[in-house]
Amino acid sequence: MQFIEIIGLVAAVCTTSAFVPQVLKTWRDKSTKDISLPMYCIFLCGTLLWLYYGLFHDSFPIVIANAVTSMLVCVMLFLKLKYK
Amino acid sequence: MQFIEIIGLVAAVCTTSAFVPQVLKTWRDKSTKDISLPMYCIFLCGTLLWLYYGLFHDSFPIVIANAVTSMLVCVMLFLKLKYK
Repeated sequence: MQFIEIIGLVAAVCTTSAFVPQVLKTWRDKSTKDISLPMYCIFLCGTLLWLYYGLFHDSFPIVIANAVTSMLVCVMLFLKLKYK
Repeated sequence: MQFIEIIGLVAAVCTTSAFVPQVLKTWRDKSTKDISLPMYCIFLCGTLLWLYYGLFHDSFPIVIANAVTSMLVCVMLFLKLKYK
């Protein structure tokens, strides 16, 4: 695998896994006052569109990164609405 | 421009602009207790790597989306550290 493709893979892992500490913090603290609901709604629209884009182009990295991110963002939306 | 490329463009605009409402909310409320610092550190690593990836591949959409997102994430990091 080319070096630049490894960079792309690491970038995808970072921008996907970044949501894990936020989900864990929110799950633990049960507080979402400072978290923007519009941010996660707009972000979810983006990741779902990227998912469609990746499926269309048969690009496994784009599909897997955005599928996982979409799930994490859905959990954040659930927690935001639950602990509003 | 092909329909699927428009989808990609809208996806990029969403996942970039999504941070604007969070920055505005944090700027206004001056409170970041519920926001995860590790999330924004990891996310910034990801967007900077995507920026490098986009520059390498001469891909304007990837460069512009991740340059703007990196700036917004830097503002969030500044606000998080300021209003810790």
